[in-house]
Amino acid sequence: MRQLPLAALCVFLLVGFCFGADRDTKVLIDAEHAFAKATAERGIDGWMEFMAPNAVELAAEPLVGLDQIRAGMGKLFQRPGFKLSWEPTKAEFLGKGDDTGYVVGWYELRVNDSDGKPQVEKGTYLTTWRKQKDGTWKVVSDVGSPDPE
Amino acid sequence: MRQLPLAALCVFLLVGFCFGADRDTKVLIDAEHAFAKATAERGIDGWMEFMAPNAVELAAEPLVGLDQIRAGMGKLFQRPGFKLSWEPTKAEFLGKGDDTGYVVGWYELRVNDSDGKPQVEKGTYLTTWRKQKDGTWKVVSDVGSPDPE
Repeated sequence: MRQLPLAALCVFLLVGFCFGADRDTKVLIDAEHAFAKATAERGIDGWMEFMAPNAVELAAEPLVGLDQIRAGMGKLFQRPGFKLSWEPTKAEFLGKGDDTGYVVGWYELRVNDSDGKPQVEKGTYLTTWRKQKDGTWKVVSDVGSPDPE
Repeated sequence: MRQLPLAALCVFLLVGFCFGADRDTKVLIDAEHAFAKATAERGIDGWMEFMAPNAVELAAEPLVGLDQIRAGMGKLFQRPGFKLSWEPTKAEFLGKGDDTGYVVGWYELRVNDSDGKPQVEKGTYLTTWRKQKDGTWKVVSDVGSPDPE
């Protein structure tokens, strides 16, 4: 039991270091949760509420700006059997400022294939967030990496 | 001294966990170093060698694709007193695959202002990399966050 104090200190310091305990990234996790909730509830309209004016969806052909994202993502949202859910697992501010950050997490995308058979794609995403002039956080880029089959 | 074995194990496990010791991210750091070296040596041509065909430079107005990036970044590279240098500090694969990753690091951008006076901007960047079909790693997005003044 005498080993506990040093071990506890060690865990505390390393967890603090690794997870950036000096900066509260809860604002980023909260924004990501609100984004996922809005999308689950209101589909493409909810998705769009969290896009910055010059956001980029880093698909094979990038979708740039609100019009392209609404059109391109809207097509995906309309596919039969569509359901997109995600959960952040990590958030960090980018650099010393408090207006840019990124969030990594897992996602699950469900759509039916051309035979109407449900398909599931799981993977990891990275969203970059910027605080807007009105104080709200919006997504400036979103990229996904599907798990290998 | 009897505390050392547990403390050492604790450090080992946590460092391994935090830095993803199960995946060798050296390939991402190496790619980032090669990108910085090519740019230092060959300017905009070196920069362009590391851009994926659909890369996006996440500036206030995003630059999308090789033509826009060469034109937009080329203007910056031609400014008097221009020097851009950077150094990666962290790299991770995105998810379970080995074809997408991101790198975070610091950058330093030097340009002269309109009076010819040297200006320095320091900040943090995040680049997203994808392995191309030919096995090379290329940048699919780049975003910077200047340090607060």
